[in-house]
Formats: sequence, structure tokens, C-alpha cells
Amino acid sequence: MSERIQVIYHVRADTGAIEARAQAIAVEQSVEMPLSAIEDTSILSDVVGDVEGITDLGAGVFAVQIGLAAATIGIDAGQFLNMLFGNTSLHDDVVLRDVILSPTFVAGFPGPRQGIAGLRALCGVPRRALTCSALKPQGMAPSALSDLAGRFARGGVDFIKDDHGLADQAFSPFAERLRAVATALRRVADETGRLTHYIPSLSGDLDRMRRHTAMTRDEGVSCVMLAPMIAGVGTLQALARDFPEMAIFVHPALAGAARIAPELLIGRLFPLFGADAVVFPTYGGRFGYSQASCGTLAGQARASGKGAMPVPAGGMTLARVPEILDFYGPETMLLIGGSLLDAKQRLTEETANFVHAVAGH
Amino acid sequence: MSERIQVIYHVRADTGAIEARAQAIAVEQSVEMPLSAIEDTSILSDVVGDVEGITDLGAGVFAVQIGLAAATIGIDAGQFLNMLFGNTSLHDDVVLRDVILSPTFVAGFPGPRQGIAGLRALCGVPRRALTCSALKPQGMAPSALSDLAGRFARGGVDFIKDDHGLADQAFSPFAERLRAVATALRRVADETGRLTHYIPSLSGDLDRMRRHTAMTRDEGVSCVMLAPMIAGVGTLQALARDFPEMAIFVHPALAGAARIAPELLIGRLFPLFGADAVVFPTYGGRFGYSQASCGTLAGQARASGKGAMPVPAGGMTLARVPEILDFYGPETMLLIGGSLLDAKQRLTEETANFVHAVAGH
Repeated sequence: MSERIQVIYHVRADTGAIEARAQAIAVEQSVEMPLSAIEDTSILSDVVGDVEGITDLGAGVFAVQIGLAAATIGIDAGQFLNMLFGNTSLHDDVVLRDVILSPTFVAGFPGPRQGIAGLRALCGVPRRALTCSALKPQGMAPSALSDLAGRFARGGVDFIKDDHGLADQAFSPFAERLRAVATALRRVADETGRLTHYIPSLSGDLDRMRRHTAMTRDEGVSCVMLAPMIAGVGTLQALARDFPEMAIFVHPALAGAARIAPELLIGRLFPLFGADAVVFPTYGGRFGYSQASCGTLAGQARASGKGAMPVPAGGMTLARVPEILDFYGPETMLLIGGSLLDAKQRLTEETANFVHAVAGH
Repeated sequence: MSERIQVIYHVRADTGAIEARAQAIAVEQSVEMPLSAIEDTSILSDVVGDVEGITDLGAGVFAVQIGLAAATIGIDAGQFLNMLFGNTSLHDDVVLRDVILSPTFVAGFPGPRQGIAGLRALCGVPRRALTCSALKPQGMAPSALSDLAGRFARGGVDFIKDDHGLADQAFSPFAERLRAVATALRRVADETGRLTHYIPSLSGDLDRMRRHTAMTRDEGVSCVMLAPMIAGVGTLQALARDFPEMAIFVHPALAGAARIAPELLIGRLFPLFGADAVVFPTYGGRFGYSQASCGTLAGQARASGKGAMPVPAGGMTLARVPEILDFYGPETMLLIGGSLLDAKQRLTEETANFVHAVAGH
């Protein structure tokens, strides 16, 4: 029971109060009861969290490092999040910032199974950045979405993902949408010699996600997407275990609100739990992650096991491709959705412009 | 496609910017693309979110009411959260505050299946507040936990829940813990004539939770607990559907960080998705929910379908029982964990004092 993981929290506190606050977090995230009531000395030594360090970061914020017993977690993604931040998430003076994990601990989790190399092999692109667009808006019927997919594919994009709002709704049932889009993409590939890969979005509970993932695989499609903070990280871990041949994309829906540093949650934990590619809101778009956060997030995703592909998104435009690629480099998948759709009748040409801009960079 | 649900967000913004900000949220939570790129007029009228009202709350905060198409949600708890707050959670100037739902929409979800009446019937207590304590710390073996459970039960407590840190760890596997605690509680009931009900904590993915819930039912135990923000709300919905005979307790782990008002998330959404009892951190304890929030949360839980039992917890003591009961009233389950454990050798007597304090109030 003596292996520890290290957890780093950023805590707002007065200098005089930080030691007690740090100790309270160590207790809250381990035994969650007064230490005076614990009589078993092995629990006091092996299970109770330890405050391993407190660093004053200035401006009333402290970095607090706490050691937690790995034995309280096992190899369960949900229990891992629970031990990292379950009750402490209820305190709004604390941000979960980072973790230090042993190779043994990491090896218990799936990690990216296809990884960056697998995604590159899938579309036969060894070096340049990959390209992706999105099927939307929701409300469109499968036939309209598959028509849209065909037009994107003729522009030569590598991947097309569902809008994360597309689920299994009456206006676009998953099975019909999957078949329609996959068929449209195969038809374009028959003409152009190049297959654009579809990434359908999973929703519902694990049963439905598993049924839809099997359906996707059986349709000859290699990728799926889910939002782990909505589905539960255990659902991601289960899918990664059950479908080692599939590439799993993760979407950040509900992840931004979690007061867990995105560098950690999206850049490290999602890949650890089985993500092959991580979609995240890039700096300078509609969302507020800083450029530094985005750079760290992307770097950590790439460094996770076999490497998870960073997929910056969220308000990207064709005009920003050079700047974005200068920043992220070629080990990146660029996702432009709404801004390509704005080209309407010229969608295929605008997609081709996007693809050429990336290839020529 | 015309039925709408109403969503109320609290948004920090300048007066001059709030209209555009509200419109951006309406688009983000529905079609998530430039409206100029949408050619289908039925999507523009039926699917795109509408800003239905903006109210200045003062101090730079506005209440924004947005109508979203119910058809984008279906009857899927995860997709519901996704449409309510998926991408907007990534903006830290927005809090998800409340929803207005039609009876038809509500009827699609499980709601509390046992409800308050079912919990009262289970323990044969028609009127007074119910009592609960907690098994901890983690690190204890099943035999030690079952011994602890027996001592609580001799004190006459109605329910005993697992600490939410107890999972399926090597030091306390779920199946062994369940059997040991259930046996200990039956033995005490044979002596005293009164059964204390065990609430084991579920962890892992839906498969494991379903396996453990079936095991719990087969052991003659009627309650389970899970943390929906860790497991995924779809997992709660699936368990509520698959086990209509069980009472489901929900724990707020990871829920406080979600920037969703606890009155809504814990008081309304968890019951809607199938919770029969909602554990939440009460005012005045270790956590920061205000007294007003706690009162609203409890009232909304009770008003959800058959009624979900509010379970205030988190740093409660015997001395606070009168004050807490004055505030919450008898339609409440009081949970005192660590503070009873601090009585050590006098645990059974202290539990009896707790039970008498509640019964005599």
C-alpha cells in the first residue's frame, strides 16, 4: 500500500492559513474524516494523504503537493478522478493543476492505442499536419449530412467529425447517419482515390456507445468521438479496452467547467484513459484558454504513451492556418468547422484551400 | 421539432455586450456555427436557440433565458447536459443556473423511483427525519468495516453509506465488503428487531456498476450510491432504468466544480435522472454552499417527481442536529460521518445520541 501518486493543487489562501488548508485537502482526498478518530496505524501511515510541499506562487496562490496512496485508486479512471478532486471540487478556492505518476501506475491504463502514428497510417500522411472539418448544424437529416460530407471530402480533408451536438436524435438517428456518411465518403474515394475518415459522435450510456462503436467498426469506419466529462471517464476507459482497433477522439464538452487545468485533464488524463486524439479550444478563438496552456496541452498529449494527436479547434479560420501551424507544428490536426461551412456553394473549393494551406506550409 | 426547453444562465458581461453574448450562447448551445452559413429555414426557426429574455441582476451579472429545441436532446441525460452546458462550460463568465421543462419532457426521464415515501417505507419511519452515517476510512478491510457497521447499527441509525472513496480496491473488494456489511447488519437486526440499511458505493464503468448493483440486490440490500458527475449522468439514468426496485443515492463528488448551480444540478437534474436521495454539502460545514442554496436545493429535490430525499452532510455534528432540523424540517435524512467516528469506543452510544436527538426533535 505504500506507492504514492503526487497531486499538485493551486490553492488561494492567506499565508497563515495555507498549512492547515493543505492538510485539510490531504485528509479530504484520502480518508475524509478526523485523523483523531483513526486507530489503525497502517491507515495513518499508508492511506492518509501527505502534504509533501507548499510553494508560494504569489498573489495569494500556493502550489500544494499532496501524496495520495495509489492503492485507493486501482486502475479505474473514475475512481482516479474521485481521489484527485471528488470532494475538493466542491471548494472553489482550489484548482487541480497536475499529477506525477509512476510508470507502473500509467501502465495500468489504456493510453492511446492507435496514437499519432496510427492516425497518420490511417490516412497515409506521414509528416504534414492533418486536417479535419465538422458536420453541422444539428437538425439536418442523414441525407443532407452525407451530402455535406461528400463535398468536404472532394476538397481533400483527412477527417470529418460530427458536431458534438449530433447524438441519436429523431431527426438524425445514429445508425442512418453513420451509413449515409460512410457511403458518401466511400463514393468520393472511388472517384478521387483518397478516403476521408469519418468520426461519428457517440452519446448515451456505455451500452449505447458500445453498440454504436461496434456498428461504426462494422461499417468500416475507424474512428469515434465522445465527451468524457459528460459520458464519464470510466466510459472512455471501457471503450478503449473493448475496441483496441478503433481510434478514439475526445471532445471537451463540460470539461472547461471542471476547474481542472486543461493541460492536465485534456492533455494528460484523457490520453491516459484511452484517447488517440484530443479536441480542445485553441487560444484566439471563441474560447478562453491561453496560448501557453494550449501549447502545454498539445505537448503533453503528444508525450502521452504512443502519443495522442492534439486537435485545436473552436473558431479557427483559413486565414489563421499559417499562424496556428507555426505555433503547434506539424504533429497536429487542424479542425475548421463553421468557417468552412460559411463558404456555402464554394464549400469544396474552400476545403481544398484549407487542405492546400496546410500541405504547403 | 417546435417544443422548447428554457435555460437560464447567469452571465458576467458589460451592458453594451450582453445582447451579443446572449445570442452567442444561444448559437453555441444549439447549432454551433455561423447562422449565415445555415440555408435550411426550418433549422433556423426550429433548432437554433432563441434569446427569450435578458435581465440585469446588477453587479455586472445578467440572467439570460434561452429557448433550446427539445428535439436536440431526446431522452438522454448526457445529451441533455451537453445541450445545456457542453461548450458553454468552457466560458468562465457563465453559470448554468436553472431550466424550465415541460411535463412531457420530464416524463421521459426516470425520476426518483422509490422516492421519499419508498425510503420511509423501507425503514418503517413515517414522519421524523431519517438518520445516516458513513463507513470510513478507506484502507479498512471488509471485516473491520462490517464491525464498524454493526456498532453503528446497534446505535439505531436508519442508513449507513459507504464513504464515497470506497470503491473496489484490493484492500476492500466490493463483493466482500457488501457481504460482510450486509451480514453484520442482519445479525444486529436479529438481536434488535430493526434493520439498518446499507448503501454501498458503486465505482467503475456501467458494466461494473450494474454487476455490483445486481449483487447488492441479490444480497437483500435495497440501496446503492454513485457520483453522477464522475460516472456520467447517462450511467445514473441507465441504472435507474435497469433497477427500478433499488433506491439510488447520489454523491456530489466532482459536482461542485461544474459551475452549474447546485440547486439545479443536485436538486433537480440528479432526481430527474433517477436519484431517490441526494447527498450534498450543507451550509456551515466544511464546504461553501450558502444556506439559501441548501434550502432551495432540498426543496427542489423533494418536489422532483415522487420526491428525492435531501441528505445534508459534510462536517455535521451532533450539536448541530437541532439547528439543522429546524432549518430543513423532517423531510430530510441527516448524515453524520466523521464526527460520530471520533467517539471511538463510544461509537454506539454516540450514534444512539444522534438517533435520539433526531427522533426527539
